[in-house]
Amino acid sequence: MRILGLDPGSRVTGYGLIEGQNPPRALAWGVIKLGNRNGLPERLYRLYQELGKILREFQPEVIALEEVIPERYPRAALSLGQSQGIILLLVGQTGLPLFTYHPLEVKTELTGNGRAGKEQVSYMVKQTLEIEEPLETDAADALALALTHFYRINRAF
Amino acid sequence: MRILGLDPGSRVTGYGLIEGQNPPRALAWGVIKLGNRNGLPERLYRLYQELGKILREFQPEVIALEEVIPERYPRAALSLGQSQGIILLLVGQTGLPLFTYHPLEVKTELTGNGRAGKEQVSYMVKQTLEIEEPLETDAADALALALTHFYRINRAF
Repeated sequence: MRILGLDPGSRVTGYGLIEGQNPPRALAWGVIKLGNRNGLPERLYRLYQELGKILREFQPEVIALEEVIPERYPRAALSLGQSQGIILLLVGQTGLPLFTYHPLEVKTELTGNGRAGKEQVSYMVKQTLEIEEPLETDAADALALALTHFYRINRAF
Repeated sequence: MRILGLDPGSRVTGYGLIEGQNPPRALAWGVIKLGNRNGLPERLYRLYQELGKILREFQPEVIALEEVIPERYPRAALSLGQSQGIILLLVGQTGLPLFTYHPLEVKTELTGNGRAGKEQVSYMVKQTLEIEEPLETDAADALALALTHFYRINRAF
């Protein structure tokens, strides 16, 4: 099963695709940076296009998304909601099954500790998927989401 | 000039299209209700489809959008951001010029009073555009946005 993990942010969205055999392996990962130069409509359109390309190229069977904890600040929440809206739209358009995981669940699945730091999560992602090159935080988080889904479904059977 | 006013909400998005000759006339208006029955991806996809239909059918030349004042509550802001993200995506996709107006500006343009109530705005919209049937609040707000843009550009020349 091909699982696409997505970690949306207002400026950067991380993605990570794994092939969920045992052991799972990473097929692709990276970050979509929206930049500051263009207006908001252009940035959101770019996110839509880039994610659409990833969906067409890699044909995931399921999407694992970070469960959004509303930001403390309304302005940040509004901005995050805009990026998240684009991802949810693509989920609706493709009809792909969507699973959301809380950051605590992801940390617990990956490291056994819900309070683990970003570095620990990233380290476990790299170990598990045998990734040797440096990994951007948002891409690591996206791969961690995909792995969380993989562990959950494999435990269920 | 055809102006499409849009008033996005997390549950209901109002739209109103005017032909900006002098006097301006209303071509179409209504609300897109997203309902509760479906999941969020389906609801956002529906908003995308319905707005896309309106854009194709009426071919507006410019979009007037309510300037979003971040909600007081982060959860509401997140939800509003999702709907707004869909509208901004369509603006990016079509390349239509976008103008945003603060609710205070809209009220002032329509009634001369920035503190006017919803009923006063709705009353002025109906008078100006000679609409006799009942008008839903969100559709009235969308038409008010379109009229605000019309007044602004007409005053500028």
